[in-house]
Amino acid sequence: MSSWYKSWILLTGFILFYVAYLLFGAFVFSTIERPVEDKLKRDIQVLKEEFLNQSCVNATSLEHFLEGVLQANKYGISILPNSSASSNWDLASSLFFANTLVTTVGYGHTTPLSDTGKAFSIFYALLGVPFTMLVLTACVQRLMHLVTYGPISMCRQKIGLEPLAATAIHFAILLLVVVLGFFVVPAVVFSYIEDTWSFLDAIYFCFITLCTIGLGDYVPGEKPGQNFRSLYKISVMVYLFVGLMMMYLVLRAFHRMADLHGLTSFFQLPHCDEDIEEDKEPIIEAGHEDQHEAEDSAKPLDPASQTSYNTINR
Amino acid sequence: MSSWYKSWILLTGFILFYVAYLLFGAFVFSTIERPVEDKLKRDIQVLKEEFLNQSCVNATSLEHFLEGVLQANKYGISILPNSSASSNWDLASSLFFANTLVTTVGYGHTTPLSDTGKAFSIFYALLGVPFTMLVLTACVQRLMHLVTYGPISMCRQKIGLEPLAATAIHFAILLLVVVLGFFVVPAVVFSYIEDTWSFLDAIYFCFITLCTIGLGDYVPGEKPGQNFRSLYKISVMVYLFVGLMMMYLVLRAFHRMADLHGLTSFFQLPHCDEDIEEDKEPIIEAGHEDQHEAEDSAKPLDPASQTSYNTINR
Repeated sequence: MSSWYKSWILLTGFILFYVAYLLFGAFVFSTIERPVEDKLKRDIQVLKEEFLNQSCVNATSLEHFLEGVLQANKYGISILPNSSASSNWDLASSLFFANTLVTTVGYGHTTPLSDTGKAFSIFYALLGVPFTMLVLTACVQRLMHLVTYGPISMCRQKIGLEPLAATAIHFAILLLVVVLGFFVVPAVVFSYIEDTWSFLDAIYFCFITLCTIGLGDYVPGEKPGQNFRSLYKISVMVYLFVGLMMMYLVLRAFHRMADLHGLTSFFQLPHCDEDIEEDKEPIIEAGHEDQHEAEDSAKPLDPASQTSYNTINR
Repeated sequence: MSSWYKSWILLTGFILFYVAYLLFGAFVFSTIERPVEDKLKRDIQVLKEEFLNQSCVNATSLEHFLEGVLQANKYGISILPNSSASSNWDLASSLFFANTLVTTVGYGHTTPLSDTGKAFSIFYALLGVPFTMLVLTACVQRLMHLVTYGPISMCRQKIGLEPLAATAIHFAILLLVVVLGFFVVPAVVFSYIEDTWSFLDAIYFCFITLCTIGLGDYVPGEKPGQNFRSLYKISVMVYLFVGLMMMYLVLRAFHRMADLHGLTSFFQLPHCDEDIEEDKEPIIEAGHEDQHEAEDSAKPLDPASQTSYNTINR
């Protein structure tokens, strides 16, 4: 079996196993947290009823009541009646939580309530975070050929651009496509679906998410009575994964451009590992583009020409 | 001026500029958000007084009141009287927020209240996140010589260990030291300082923080009346930065070990960039350790032997 086939089978295996790992996490989180959430919901309703049944509401009783309300709210349990219908720990929400955990986005709009849940989060992220990096890098190193090496090589052959100019133009186009496709368009969609989000809120959400900061002040699909909530949550997960791949692609393309333009050398910074040799070749010996491209396609998966799997640390 | 000096001056410059960048961010966030926070605090107090002055409390008025309370709470503003003394946007807290933004931890315990704050967060993180990666990697590539190459080389020379065994033993010791020094000991300290945190809570906080997940269910220095709050917040920032460096060091050491043991080749994964050549040399030609070490110290900052600055994406 050729190296090419073996590599693609490995990638497919990684992705299938990744999906299975997310489903496994969702199932365990849901099993652990759902009963605790139900108990907290009942407790908070009892607290509310007790408060409403009081003959006289004073500052002390109100503060005692609000302490309970805010404590429950910290765990994502709202006392408001229209919020109590949906669970934070049904299968789709648990899957979303598991995904934000392993991608290190961590919105924190829902957090584990029980000690078992916290311990499992540690164990789950301990394996899940490196595994996510690995899957993302495996995908990105294949995309690099399609999205970076291919177009740059074509620019040089068809339009006869210099390598420096070709890299810079390619980077500008890639950046524009990513900004439009992964920030502007999703922001339009989010601000349409989420009633309370302005366009700035939606752009802010996309940015905070794809940088893996994940402040959690805006989380999609959390409004009460959201239509197709599960499907929506899963779509956001796909957006998150593909978006992270794109962010990494842009970072790699920028790093290669900085290498070629001598920025990394000037600042005594590390080069963009081994790919740079590939780019330098034509500068030294012009007119070898054909041979260069042939080499590219002949050994797309040579480990020495691949990106480092510790390069995405999300 | 030698390359060695130039490189250390650059690193010092990076760190000083990084501190200045954090202070600048803190100043801007504090200036933008403090007035908005004060207004929200006044509004919520008015809402509370109105609610308390009602002759009859019913479910509808309570829900209206709670909506206001939870909305303010989302922005980190608590209605409880003992929480209102400290601000989320004083200089120390803003510095802490700026730091969690650029390291991509993003607890989200406080989030920008105004549109200006949100827009500035995007701009600030856009420059800050890559800059943090750069400073972290610049620090790590210097630490690698002290913490990884040096000890492994010494193990091989003094104890006469094989490279594979030396790398494995070194990794095990490094992991133990990092787990003890950056998880167990800080967790003991946090569970001592924070009254409501158990040891599991503290370990969970350390883990969720150093993976940059940052759920934000546990954030140090947030309890009302915290002693030396500013100093405590700054100490947590230092812990966060050094901890992230250590996490990256462990990741690099693991990757090198996986390379040497043939794991990365087996899974067709990228190698740990150029450092691997350095390790392979003595396997092929034994007895060259002295020369190898001399080379190491002679060119500690050769760009080609350094780690990639896109390798930390936090």
